Amino acid sequence: MERIEQHACFGGSQEVWKHSSAVLGCEMRFAVYLPPQSRLEARPVLYWLGGLTSSEQNFITKSGAQRYAAEHGLILVAADSSPRGAGVADDPAYDLGQGAGFYLNATEEPWAAHYRMFDYVTAELPALVESHFPATDARSIAGHSMGGHGALIATLKRPGFYTSTSAFAPIVAPSQVPWGQKAFTAYLGTDAKNWAAWDACALLASAADKVRLFVDQGEADEFLETQLKPHLLHEAAKAGGHDLMLRTHPHYDHSYYFITSFIAEHIAYHAAALSSER
Amino acid sequence: MERIEQHACFGGSQEVWKHSSAVLGCEMRFAVYLPPQSRLEARPVLYWLGGLTSSEQNFITKSGAQRYAAEHGLILVAADSSPRGAGVADDPAYDLGQGAGFYLNATEEPWAAHYRMFDYVTAELPALVESHFPATDARSIAGHSMGGHGALIATLKRPGFYTSTSAFAPIVAPSQVPWGQKAFTAYLGTDAKNWAAWDACALLASAADKVRLFVDQGEADEFLETQLKPHLLHEAAKAGGHDLMLRTHPHYDHSYYFITSFIAEHIAYHAAALSSER
Repeated sequence: MERIEQHACFGGSQEVWKHSSAVLGCEMRFAVYLPPQSRLEARPVLYWLGGLTSSEQNFITKSGAQRYAAEHGLILVAADSSPRGAGVADDPAYDLGQGAGFYLNATEEPWAAHYRMFDYVTAELPALVESHFPATDARSIAGHSMGGHGALIATLKRPGFYTSTSAFAPIVAPSQVPWGQKAFTAYLGTDAKNWAAWDACALLASAADKVRLFVDQGEADEFLETQLKPHLLHEAAKAGGHDLMLRTHPHYDHSYYFITSFIAEHIAYHAAALSSER
Repeated sequence: MERIEQHACFGGSQEVWKHSSAVLGCEMRFAVYLPPQSRLEARPVLYWLGGLTSSEQNFITKSGAQRYAAEHGLILVAADSSPRGAGVADDPAYDLGQGAGFYLNATEEPWAAHYRMFDYVTAELPALVESHFPATDARSIAGHSMGGHGALIATLKRPGFYTSTSAFAPIVAPSQVPWGQKAFTAYLGTDAKNWAAWDACALLASAADKVRLFVDQGEADEFLETQLKPHLLHEAAKAGGHDLMLRTHPHYDHSYYFITSFIAEHIAYHAAALSSER
Protein backbone atom coordinates (compact mmCIF):
# COMPACT_ATOMS: atom_id res chain seq x y z
CA MET A 1 0.00 0.00 0.00
CA GLU A 2 1.36 3.37 -1.01
CA ARG A 3 -0.34 6.74 -0.77
CA ILE A 4 0.06 8.63 -4.05
CA GLU A 5 -2.23 11.63 -3.43
CA GLN A 6 -3.28 13.52 -0.33
CA HIS A 7 -5.32 16.74 -0.29
CA ALA A 8 -7.05 18.53 2.57
CA CYS A 9 -10.74 18.75 1.70
CA PHE A 10 -13.67 19.96 3.84
CA GLY A 11 -11.61 19.47 6.97
CA GLY A 12 -10.77 15.87 6.11
CA SER A 13 -8.33 14.20 3.75
CA GLN A 14 -8.89 13.10 0.15
CA GLU A 15 -6.34 10.40 -0.64
CA VAL A 16 -5.47 8.01 -3.47
CA TRP A 17 -3.66 4.76 -2.72
CA LYS A 18 -2.14 2.06 -4.88
CA HIS A 19 -1.68 -1.56 -3.90
CA SER A 20 -1.01 -4.97 -5.37
CA SER A 21 -4.32 -6.83 -5.65
CA ALA A 22 -4.05 -10.58 -5.01
CA VAL A 23 -7.55 -11.14 -6.41
CA LEU A 24 -6.97 -9.23 -9.64
CA GLY A 25 -3.28 -10.04 -10.10
CA CYS A 26 -2.34 -6.43 -10.89
CA GLU A 27 -1.63 -3.09 -9.29
CA MET A 28 -4.78 -1.14 -8.43
CA ARG A 29 -5.65 2.34 -7.25
CA PHE A 30 -8.51 3.44 -5.07
CA ALA A 31 -9.54 6.74 -3.53
CA VAL A 32 -10.47 7.23 0.10
CA TYR A 33 -11.96 10.32 1.70
CA LEU A 34 -11.38 10.42 5.45
CA PRO A 35 -13.81 12.84 7.12
CA PRO A 36 -12.61 14.92 10.07
CA GLN A 37 -14.48 12.64 12.52
CA SER A 38 -12.26 9.70 11.54
CA ARG A 39 -9.31 11.31 13.33
CA LEU A 40 -11.12 10.58 16.61
CA GLU A 41 -12.98 7.33 16.02
CA ALA A 42 -13.62 4.62 13.44
CA ARG A 43 -16.38 5.56 10.98
CA PRO A 44 -18.58 3.59 8.56
CA VAL A 45 -17.74 3.41 4.86
CA LEU A 46 -19.67 4.17 1.69
CA TYR A 47 -18.23 2.40 -1.37
CA TRP A 48 -18.65 4.03 -4.77
CA LEU A 49 -18.52 2.12 -8.06
CA GLY A 50 -18.05 4.20 -11.21
CA GLY A 51 -19.44 3.86 -14.70
CA LEU A 52 -17.87 2.87 -18.01
CA THR A 53 -14.41 4.44 -18.62
CA SER A 54 -14.11 5.74 -15.06
CA SER A 55 -11.19 5.37 -12.69
CA GLU A 56 -11.02 6.20 -8.99
CA GLN A 57 -10.73 9.88 -10.03
CA ASN A 58 -14.14 10.69 -11.51
CA PHE A 59 -16.17 10.53 -8.32
CA ILE A 60 -13.65 12.35 -6.14
CA THR A 61 -13.11 15.25 -8.55
CA LYS A 62 -16.67 15.72 -9.85
CA SER A 63 -19.33 14.56 -7.39
CA GLY A 64 -18.84 17.07 -4.58
CA ALA A 65 -19.56 14.21 -2.14
CA GLN A 66 -16.83 15.16 0.34
CA ARG A 67 -18.84 18.02 1.81
CA TYR A 68 -21.64 15.67 2.83
CA ALA A 69 -19.31 12.90 3.94
CA ALA A 70 -17.65 15.46 6.23
CA GLU A 71 -21.04 16.52 7.60
CA HIS A 72 -22.10 12.94 8.35
CA GLY A 73 -18.72 11.46 9.26
CA LEU A 74 -18.75 8.88 6.47
CA ILE A 75 -15.60 7.48 4.88
CA LEU A 76 -15.91 7.37 1.07
CA VAL A 77 -14.05 4.74 -0.97
CA ALA A 78 -14.09 5.01 -4.78
CA ALA A 79 -12.87 1.92 -6.64
CA ASP A 80 -11.49 1.68 -10.14
CA SER A 81 -13.80 0.10 -12.73
CA SER A 82 -11.59 -2.80 -13.88
CA PRO A 83 -8.21 -4.42 -13.45
CA ARG A 84 -5.46 -2.32 -15.04
CA GLY A 85 -2.03 -2.54 -16.60
CA ALA A 86 -0.03 -3.72 -19.59
CA GLY A 87 -0.41 -7.39 -18.60
CA VAL A 88 -4.21 -7.19 -18.34
CA ALA A 89 -6.45 -8.12 -21.30
CA ASP A 90 -8.05 -5.13 -23.00
CA ASP A 91 -10.21 -4.14 -25.94
CA PRO A 92 -10.16 -0.92 -27.96
CA ALA A 93 -13.87 -0.30 -27.33
CA TYR A 94 -14.81 1.89 -24.35
CA ASP A 95 -17.37 -0.64 -23.16
CA LEU A 96 -15.19 -3.75 -22.86
CA GLY A 97 -11.93 -4.53 -21.09
CA GLN A 98 -10.05 -1.95 -19.03
CA GLY A 99 -12.46 0.67 -17.70
CA ALA A 100 -15.39 -1.71 -18.22
CA GLY A 101 -15.07 -4.61 -15.76
CA PHE A 102 -18.81 -4.75 -14.95
CA TYR A 103 -18.00 -5.74 -11.34
CA LEU A 104 -18.29 -9.47 -12.09
CA ASN A 105 -15.96 -12.49 -12.04
CA ALA A 106 -15.20 -13.47 -15.64
CA THR A 107 -15.08 -17.13 -16.67
CA GLU A 108 -14.00 -16.78 -20.32
CA GLU A 109 -10.59 -16.21 -21.84
CA PRO A 110 -8.77 -13.88 -22.20
CA TRP A 111 -10.62 -12.18 -19.33
CA ALA A 112 -10.77 -14.83 -16.59
CA ALA A 113 -7.17 -14.33 -15.45
CA HIS A 114 -7.67 -10.79 -14.11
CA TYR A 115 -11.32 -9.74 -14.40
CA ARG A 116 -12.58 -10.66 -10.91
CA MET A 117 -13.91 -7.23 -9.94
CA PHE A 118 -16.79 -8.71 -7.92
CA ASP A 119 -14.44 -10.44 -5.51
CA TYR A 120 -12.24 -7.35 -5.47
CA VAL A 121 -14.88 -4.76 -4.60
CA THR A 122 -16.95 -6.95 -2.25
CA ALA A 123 -14.13 -8.72 -0.38
CA GLU A 124 -10.50 -7.74 -0.95
CA LEU A 125 -11.07 -3.97 -1.00
CA PRO A 126 -13.31 -3.84 2.11
CA ALA A 127 -10.84 -6.02 4.02
CA LEU A 128 -8.01 -3.70 3.00
CA VAL A 129 -9.95 -0.57 3.92
CA GLU A 130 -11.08 -1.93 7.27
CA SER A 131 -7.55 -2.96 8.24
CA HIS A 132 -5.68 0.17 7.07
CA PHE A 133 -8.03 3.07 7.82
CA PRO A 134 -10.13 4.14 10.82
CA ALA A 135 -13.15 2.29 9.40
CA THR A 136 -15.78 0.22 11.14
CA ASP A 137 -17.20 -2.88 9.45
CA ALA A 138 -20.45 -1.03 8.69
CA ARG A 139 -20.62 -0.49 4.93
CA SER A 140 -22.96 0.83 2.30
CA ILE A 141 -22.60 0.90 -1.46
CA ALA A 142 -23.58 3.17 -4.32
CA GLY A 143 -22.68 3.64 -7.95
CA HIS A 144 -23.39 5.18 -11.33
CA SER A 145 -24.49 3.46 -14.53
CA MET A 146 -22.28 0.31 -14.80
CA GLY A 147 -21.35 1.04 -11.18
CA GLY A 148 -25.03 1.21 -10.26
CA HIS A 149 -25.33 -2.31 -11.66
CA GLY A 150 -22.31 -3.19 -9.52
CA ALA A 151 -23.91 -1.79 -6.37
CA LEU A 152 -27.16 -3.66 -7.05
CA ILE A 153 -25.55 -7.07 -7.67
CA ALA A 154 -23.15 -6.62 -4.73
CA THR A 155 -26.17 -6.06 -2.49
CA LEU A 156 -28.11 -8.99 -3.89
CA LYS A 157 -25.21 -11.47 -3.94
CA ARG A 158 -23.84 -10.55 -0.50
CA PRO A 159 -26.94 -10.45 1.73
CA GLY A 160 -26.32 -8.56 4.94
CA PHE A 161 -22.89 -7.31 3.90
CA TYR A 162 -24.08 -3.78 3.00
CA THR A 163 -26.36 -1.73 5.22
CA SER A 164 -27.83 0.35 2.40
CA THR A 165 -27.67 0.63 -1.38
CA SER A 166 -28.27 3.41 -3.86
CA ALA A 167 -27.61 4.10 -7.51
CA PHE A 168 -27.64 6.86 -10.10
CA ALA A 169 -28.90 5.81 -13.54
CA PRO A 170 -27.94 2.15 -13.06
CA ILE A 171 -27.84 -0.60 -15.65
CA VAL A 172 -30.51 -2.81 -14.03
CA ALA A 173 -30.92 -5.64 -16.54
CA PRO A 174 -27.62 -6.17 -18.34
CA SER A 175 -28.89 -9.38 -19.97
CA GLN A 176 -31.49 -7.32 -21.83
CA VAL A 177 -29.46 -4.32 -23.08
CA PRO A 178 -26.58 -3.89 -25.56
CA TRP A 179 -23.87 -2.83 -23.06
CA GLY A 180 -24.59 -5.82 -20.84
CA GLN A 181 -25.08 -8.35 -23.62
CA LYS A 182 -21.74 -7.43 -25.16
CA ALA A 183 -19.88 -7.57 -21.84
CA PHE A 184 -21.59 -10.73 -20.56
CA THR A 185 -20.93 -12.56 -23.85
CA ALA A 186 -17.24 -11.70 -23.58
CA TYR A 187 -16.77 -12.24 -19.84
CA LEU A 188 -19.29 -15.06 -19.17
CA GLY A 189 -19.75 -16.74 -22.53
CA THR A 190 -22.61 -17.10 -24.95
CA ASP A 191 -24.83 -19.28 -22.74
CA ALA A 192 -27.26 -16.74 -21.27
CA LYS A 193 -28.09 -19.18 -18.47
CA ASN A 194 -24.84 -18.06 -16.86
CA TRP A 195 -25.84 -14.41 -16.97
CA ALA A 196 -28.68 -14.45 -14.43
CA ALA A 197 -26.26 -14.64 -11.50
CA TRP A 198 -24.91 -11.19 -12.51
CA ASP A 199 -28.16 -9.48 -13.53
CA ALA A 200 -29.89 -7.34 -10.89
CA CYS A 201 -33.41 -7.88 -12.21
CA ALA A 202 -32.87 -11.65 -12.42
CA LEU A 203 -31.35 -11.71 -8.93
CA LEU A 204 -34.25 -9.68 -7.51
CA ALA A 205 -36.72 -12.25 -8.82
CA SER A 206 -35.01 -15.07 -6.94
CA ALA A 207 -33.74 -13.23 -3.84
CA ALA A 208 -34.65 -14.94 -0.59
CA ASP A 209 -34.17 -11.78 1.48
CA LYS A 210 -36.10 -8.60 0.79
CA VAL A 211 -33.87 -5.68 -0.12
CA ARG A 212 -34.26 -1.92 0.00
CA LEU A 213 -32.93 0.14 -2.91
CA PHE A 214 -32.77 3.88 -3.62
CA VAL A 215 -32.38 4.83 -7.29
CA ASP A 216 -32.28 8.25 -8.99
CA GLN A 217 -32.72 8.48 -12.75
CA GLY A 218 -32.61 11.50 -15.04
CA GLU A 219 -35.40 11.72 -17.58
CA ALA A 220 -33.16 13.34 -20.20
CA ASP A 221 -30.55 10.58 -19.82
CA GLU A 222 -29.29 9.73 -23.30
CA PHE A 223 -29.06 6.03 -22.34
CA LEU A 224 -32.45 5.77 -20.64
CA GLU A 225 -34.37 3.78 -23.27
CA THR A 226 -31.54 1.73 -24.76
CA GLN A 227 -29.29 0.72 -21.86
CA LEU A 228 -30.93 1.55 -18.52
CA LYS A 229 -34.65 0.68 -18.67
CA PRO A 230 -35.43 1.45 -15.02
CA HIS A 231 -39.01 0.16 -15.44
CA LEU A 232 -37.54 -3.35 -15.49
CA LEU A 233 -36.14 -2.75 -11.99
CA HIS A 234 -39.47 -1.36 -10.87
CA GLU A 235 -41.29 -4.47 -12.16
CA ALA A 236 -38.77 -6.92 -10.70
CA ALA A 237 -38.84 -5.22 -7.30
CA LYS A 238 -42.63 -5.15 -7.26
CA ALA A 239 -42.92 -8.81 -8.28
CA GLY A 240 -40.44 -9.85 -5.60
CA GLY A 241 -41.88 -7.66 -2.86
CA HIS A 242 -38.73 -5.55 -2.54
CA ASP A 243 -38.66 -1.93 -1.37
CA LEU A 244 -37.53 0.25 -4.27
CA MET A 245 -37.53 4.03 -4.05
CA LEU A 246 -37.12 5.06 -7.69
CA ARG A 247 -37.14 8.79 -8.42
CA THR A 248 -37.06 10.27 -11.88
CA HIS A 249 -35.90 13.83 -12.48
CA PRO A 250 -36.98 15.89 -15.50
CA HIS A 251 -34.17 17.45 -17.58
CA TYR A 252 -31.24 15.61 -15.91
CA ASP A 253 -28.85 13.65 -18.14
CA HIS A 254 -26.30 10.86 -17.52
CA SER A 255 -23.41 13.14 -16.48
CA TYR A 256 -21.84 14.04 -13.15
CA TYR A 257 -23.93 17.24 -13.22
CA PHE A 258 -26.82 14.91 -12.37
CA ILE A 259 -24.87 13.05 -9.69
CA THR A 260 -23.61 16.20 -7.98
CA SER A 261 -27.14 17.62 -7.88
CA PHE A 262 -28.46 14.71 -5.79
CA ILE A 263 -25.42 13.19 -4.06
CA ALA A 264 -26.27 15.04 -0.81
CA GLU A 265 -29.49 13.03 -0.52
CA HIS A 266 -27.68 9.75 -1.20
CA ILE A 267 -25.03 10.45 1.43
CA ALA A 268 -27.72 11.43 3.95
CA TYR A 269 -29.66 8.25 3.12
CA HIS A 270 -26.65 6.02 3.74
CA ALA A 271 -25.60 7.94 6.85
CA ALA A 272 -29.07 7.50 8.37
CA ALA A 273 -29.09 3.78 7.60
CA LEU A 274 -25.60 3.28 8.97
CA SER A 275 -26.25 5.25 12.15
CA SER A 276 -29.53 3.47 12.90
CA GLU A 277 -27.63 0.18 12.75
CA ARG A 278 -24.99 1.12 15.30
CA MET B 1 -22.79 31.99 -30.54
CA GLU B 2 -23.47 28.29 -30.40
CA ARG B 3 -24.35 26.21 -27.36
CA ILE B 4 -22.21 23.06 -27.31
CA GLU B 5 -23.11 21.64 -23.88
CA GLN B 6 -26.22 21.80 -21.73
CA HIS B 7 -26.77 19.87 -18.51
CA ALA B 8 -29.42 20.23 -15.82
CA CYS B 9 -27.62 20.95 -12.55
CA PHE B 10 -29.09 21.89 -9.15
CA GLY B 11 -32.32 22.96 -10.79
CA GLY B 12 -30.56 25.28 -13.24
CA SER B 13 -28.60 24.78 -16.44
CA GLN B 14 -24.85 24.31 -16.86
CA GLU B 15 -23.96 25.31 -20.40
CA VAL B 16 -20.87 25.75 -22.59
CA TRP B 17 -20.95 28.14 -25.54
CA LYS B 18 -18.54 28.90 -28.34
CA HIS B 19 -18.30 32.16 -30.21
CA SER B 20 -16.01 34.10 -32.48
CA SER B 21 -14.13 36.68 -30.40
CA ALA B 22 -13.48 39.96 -32.20
CA VAL B 23 -11.01 41.03 -29.51
CA LEU B 24 -8.96 37.84 -29.59
CA GLY B 25 -9.37 37.01 -33.27
CA CYS B 26 -10.19 33.36 -32.64
CA GLU B 27 -12.98 31.05 -31.60
CA MET B 28 -13.48 30.91 -27.83
CA ARG B 29 -15.48 28.85 -25.39
CA PHE B 30 -16.95 29.90 -22.09
CA ALA B 31 -19.17 28.20 -19.54
CA VAL B 32 -22.30 29.71 -18.04
CA TYR B 33 -24.36 28.36 -15.16
CA LEU B 34 -27.90 29.72 -15.16
CA PRO B 35 -29.51 29.31 -11.73
CA PRO B 36 -33.21 28.45 -11.52
CA GLN B 37 -34.05 32.05 -10.55
CA SER B 38 -32.82 33.29 -13.94
CA ARG B 39 -35.83 31.71 -15.64
CA LEU B 40 -37.96 34.39 -13.94
CA GLU B 41 -35.76 37.47 -13.78
CA ALA B 42 -32.34 38.80 -14.72
CA ARG B 43 -29.67 37.91 -12.18
CA PRO B 44 -26.17 39.26 -11.37
CA VAL B 45 -23.09 37.48 -12.66
CA LEU B 46 -19.94 36.14 -11.00
CA TYR B 47 -17.04 35.77 -13.43
CA TRP B 48 -14.45 33.06 -12.75
CA LEU B 49 -10.90 33.16 -14.13
CA GLY B 50 -8.96 29.88 -14.02
CA GLY B 51 -5.31 29.12 -13.36
CA LEU B 52 -2.49 27.95 -15.62
CA THR B 53 -3.51 25.18 -18.08
CA SER B 54 -7.21 25.56 -17.33
CA SER B 55 -10.05 25.88 -19.80
CA GLU B 56 -13.69 26.77 -19.12
CA GLN B 57 -14.14 23.16 -17.90
CA ASN B 58 -12.10 23.02 -14.69
CA PHE B 59 -14.27 25.25 -12.56
CA ILE B 60 -17.59 23.84 -13.73
CA THR B 61 -16.61 20.19 -13.24
CA LYS B 62 -14.57 20.44 -10.03
CA SER B 63 -15.57 23.42 -7.86
CA GLY B 64 -19.08 22.42 -6.85
CA ALA B 65 -20.05 26.09 -7.17
CA GLN B 66 -23.38 25.44 -8.87
CA ARG B 67 -25.08 24.41 -5.64
CA TYR B 68 -24.35 27.79 -4.06
CA ALA B 69 -25.08 29.76 -7.21
CA ALA B 70 -28.49 28.07 -7.26
CA GLU B 71 -29.07 28.96 -3.62
CA HIS B 72 -28.19 32.63 -4.16
CA GLY B 73 -29.49 33.08 -7.69
CA LEU B 74 -26.10 34.01 -9.16
CA ILE B 75 -25.13 33.37 -12.75
CA LEU B 76 -21.61 31.91 -13.02
CA VAL B 77 -19.44 32.55 -16.07
CA ALA B 78 -16.14 30.66 -16.41
CA ALA B 79 -13.76 31.98 -19.06
CA ASP B 80 -10.98 30.16 -20.85
CA SER B 81 -7.44 31.13 -19.79
CA SER B 82 -6.06 32.27 -23.18
CA PRO B 83 -6.88 32.61 -26.85
CA ARG B 84 -6.99 29.21 -28.56
CA GLY B 85 -6.54 27.52 -31.89
CA ALA B 86 -4.06 26.49 -34.57
CA GLY B 87 -3.56 30.10 -35.71
CA VAL B 88 -2.73 31.37 -32.22
CA ALA B 89 0.88 31.61 -31.01
CA ASP B 90 1.82 28.96 -28.48
CA ASP B 91 4.74 27.61 -26.48
CA PRO B 92 5.41 24.04 -25.36
CA ALA B 93 5.73 25.10 -21.71
CA TYR B 94 2.59 24.90 -19.56
CA ASP B 95 3.16 28.41 -18.24
CA LEU B 96 3.35 30.36 -21.51
CA GLY B 97 1.07 30.65 -24.52
CA GLN B 98 -2.21 28.77 -24.81
CA GLY B 99 -3.60 28.01 -21.35
CA ALA B 100 -1.45 30.80 -19.86
CA GLY B 101 -2.72 34.16 -21.10
CA PHE B 102 -2.30 35.92 -17.74
CA TYR B 103 -5.42 38.04 -18.45
CA LEU B 104 -3.38 40.89 -19.94
CA ASN B 105 -3.03 42.60 -23.32
CA ALA B 106 0.28 41.58 -24.89
CA THR B 107 2.43 44.10 -26.71
CA GLU B 108 5.23 41.83 -27.96
CA GLU B 109 5.38 39.51 -30.95
CA PRO B 110 4.35 36.79 -31.61
CA TRP B 111 1.77 37.30 -28.84
CA ALA B 112 0.28 40.74 -29.54
CA ALA B 113 -1.97 39.57 -32.38
CA HIS B 114 -4.24 37.41 -30.20
CA TYR B 115 -3.26 37.70 -26.53
CA ARG B 116 -5.68 40.41 -25.38
CA MET B 117 -7.34 38.49 -22.57
CA PHE B 118 -7.78 41.59 -20.41
CA ASP B 119 -10.02 43.26 -22.96
CA TYR B 120 -11.77 39.95 -23.56
CA VAL B 121 -12.66 39.12 -19.96
CA THR B 122 -13.39 42.68 -18.80
CA ALA B 123 -15.28 43.97 -21.85
CA GLU B 124 -16.17 41.64 -24.71
CA LEU B 125 -17.27 38.70 -22.57
CA PRO B 126 -19.43 40.75 -20.14
CA ALA B 127 -21.11 42.52 -23.05
CA LEU B 128 -21.84 39.17 -24.68
CA VAL B 129 -23.16 37.66 -21.45
CA GLU B 130 -25.33 40.65 -20.64
CA SER B 131 -26.90 40.69 -24.10
CA HIS B 132 -27.47 36.93 -24.54
CA PHE B 133 -28.45 35.69 -21.09
CA PRO B 134 -30.87 36.85 -18.37
CA ALA B 135 -28.06 38.80 -16.68
CA THR B 136 -28.12 42.20 -15.02
CA ASP B 137 -25.14 44.52 -15.32
CA ALA B 138 -24.14 43.78 -11.72
CA ARG B 139 -20.93 41.76 -11.79
CA SER B 140 -18.37 40.32 -9.46
CA ILE B 141 -15.14 38.49 -10.23
CA ALA B 142 -13.10 35.68 -8.70
CA GLY B 143 -10.30 33.38 -9.75
CA HIS B 144 -7.62 30.88 -8.86
CA SER B 145 -3.83 31.29 -9.04
CA MET B 146 -3.15 33.01 -12.40
CA GLY B 147 -6.91 33.66 -12.47
CA GLY B 148 -6.70 35.21 -9.01
CA HIS B 149 -4.15 37.61 -10.46
CA GLY B 150 -6.63 38.24 -13.28
CA ALA B 151 -9.45 39.02 -10.85
CA LEU B 152 -7.24 41.41 -8.87
CA ILE B 153 -6.00 43.39 -11.87
CA ALA B 154 -9.47 43.47 -13.44
CA THR B 155 -10.77 45.06 -10.24
CA LEU B 156 -7.91 47.55 -9.98
CA LYS B 157 -7.88 48.56 -13.65
CA ARG B 158 -11.67 48.82 -14.02
CA PRO B 159 -12.77 50.82 -10.94
CA GLY B 160 -16.47 50.41 -10.27
CA PHE B 161 -16.99 47.74 -12.91
CA TYR B 162 -17.05 44.85 -10.41
CA THR B 163 -19.07 44.91 -7.20
CA SER B 164 -16.84 42.45 -5.32
CA THR B 165 -13.62 40.51 -5.82
CA SER B 166 -12.21 37.32 -4.37
CA ALA B 167 -9.39 34.92 -5.10
CA PHE B 168 -8.03 31.52 -4.18
CA ALA B 169 -4.24 31.31 -3.96
CA PRO B 170 -3.68 34.24 -6.35
CA ILE B 171 -0.45 35.34 -7.98
CA VAL B 172 -0.33 38.79 -6.37
CA ALA B 173 3.00 40.19 -7.55
CA PRO B 174 3.82 38.68 -10.95
CA SER B 175 6.74 41.07 -11.43
CA GLN B 176 8.46 39.46 -8.45
CA VAL B 177 7.94 35.71 -9.08
CA PRO B 178 9.14 33.26 -11.77
CA TRP B 179 5.75 32.54 -13.40
CA GLY B 180 5.02 36.24 -13.80
CA GLN B 181 8.53 37.29 -14.83
CA LYS B 182 8.59 34.68 -17.59
CA ALA B 183 5.13 35.60 -18.89
CA PHE B 184 5.60 39.38 -18.60
CA THR B 185 8.95 39.22 -20.39
CA ALA B 186 7.33 37.35 -23.27
CA TYR B 187 4.06 39.26 -23.45
CA LEU B 188 5.18 42.77 -22.36
CA GLY B 189 8.89 42.84 -23.12
CA THR B 190 12.01 43.09 -21.02
CA ASP B 191 11.45 46.63 -19.76
CA ALA B 192 10.01 46.04 -16.30
CA LYS B 193 8.58 49.60 -16.28
CA ASN B 194 5.80 48.22 -18.47
CA TRP B 195 4.93 45.50 -15.99
CA ALA B 196 3.51 47.64 -13.17
CA ALA B 197 0.25 48.25 -15.04
CA TRP B 198 -0.43 44.47 -14.85
CA ASP B 199 0.83 43.73 -11.33
CA ALA B 200 -1.75 43.72 -8.52
CA CYS B 201 0.66 44.82 -5.80
CA ALA B 202 1.99 47.67 -7.95
CA LEU B 203 -1.55 48.72 -8.90
CA LEU B 204 -2.65 48.67 -5.25
CA ALA B 205 0.13 51.09 -4.36
CA SER B 206 -1.09 53.66 -6.90
CA ALA B 207 -4.85 53.04 -6.82
CA ALA B 208 -6.90 56.22 -6.37
CA ASP B 209 -9.97 54.32 -5.15
CA LYS B 210 -9.88 52.07 -2.11
CA VAL B 211 -10.74 48.46 -2.92
CA ARG B 212 -12.03 45.53 -0.90
CA LEU B 213 -10.54 42.08 -1.54
CA PHE B 214 -11.24 38.60 -0.13
CA VAL B 215 -8.44 36.06 -0.52
CA ASP B 216 -8.14 32.47 0.69
CA GLN B 217 -4.74 30.78 0.72
CA GLY B 218 -3.78 27.21 1.66
CA GLU B 219 -0.77 26.91 3.94
CA ALA B 220 0.33 23.62 2.31
CA ASP B 221 0.18 25.18 -1.17
CA GLU B 222 3.21 23.92 -3.10
CA PHE B 223 3.57 27.34 -4.80
CA LEU B 224 3.15 29.48 -1.70
CA GLU B 225 6.74 30.64 -1.19
CA THR B 226 7.94 30.69 -4.79
CA GLN B 227 5.05 32.02 -6.87
CA LEU B 228 2.26 33.36 -4.64
CA LYS B 229 3.80 35.32 -1.73
CA PRO B 230 0.52 36.57 -0.24
CA HIS B 231 2.40 38.68 2.32
CA LEU B 232 3.22 41.06 -0.54
CA LEU B 233 -0.50 41.62 -1.08
CA HIS B 234 -1.00 42.13 2.63
CA GLU B 235 1.76 44.75 2.72
CA ALA B 236 0.56 46.54 -0.41
CA ALA B 237 -3.04 46.65 0.82
CA LYS B 238 -1.98 47.93 4.22
CA ALA B 239 0.28 50.61 2.72
CA GLY B 240 -2.49 51.77 0.40
CA GLY B 241 -5.27 51.67 2.99
CA HIS B 242 -7.21 48.99 1.15
CA ASP B 243 -9.51 46.47 2.83
CA LEU B 244 -8.02 42.99 2.42
CA MET B 245 -9.52 39.96 4.13
CA LEU B 246 -6.75 37.37 3.76
CA ARG B 247 -7.39 33.98 5.31
CA THR B 248 -4.83 31.17 5.48
CA HIS B 249 -5.89 27.57 5.93
CA PRO B 250 -3.58 24.93 7.41
CA HIS B 251 -3.12 21.73 5.35
CA TYR B 252 -4.81 22.96 2.15
CA ASP B 253 -2.87 22.77 -1.14
CA HIS B 254 -3.21 24.48 -4.54
CA SER B 255 -5.77 22.05 -5.99
CA TYR B 256 -9.52 22.20 -6.57
CA TYR B 257 -9.95 20.25 -3.32
CA PHE B 258 -9.04 23.56 -1.67
CA ILE B 259 -11.37 25.59 -3.88
CA THR B 260 -14.35 23.29 -3.42
CA SER B 261 -13.88 23.39 0.37
CA PHE B 262 -14.35 27.18 0.53
CA ILE B 263 -16.26 28.13 -2.63
CA ALA B 264 -19.53 28.32 -0.67
CA GLU B 265 -18.15 31.23 1.34
CA HIS B 266 -16.94 33.04 -1.78
CA ILE B 267 -20.30 32.67 -3.50
CA ALA B 268 -22.09 33.91 -0.36
CA TYR B 269 -19.68 36.86 -0.14
CA HIS B 270 -20.35 37.92 -3.72
CA ALA B 271 -24.09 37.34 -3.43
CA ALA B 272 -24.26 39.58 -0.34
CA ALA B 273 -22.28 42.34 -2.05
CA LEU B 274 -24.37 42.13 -5.21
CA SER B 275 -27.69 42.11 -3.37
CA SER B 276 -26.77 45.04 -1.14
CA GLU B 277 -26.05 47.04 -4.29
CA ARG B 278 -29.42 46.42 -5.92
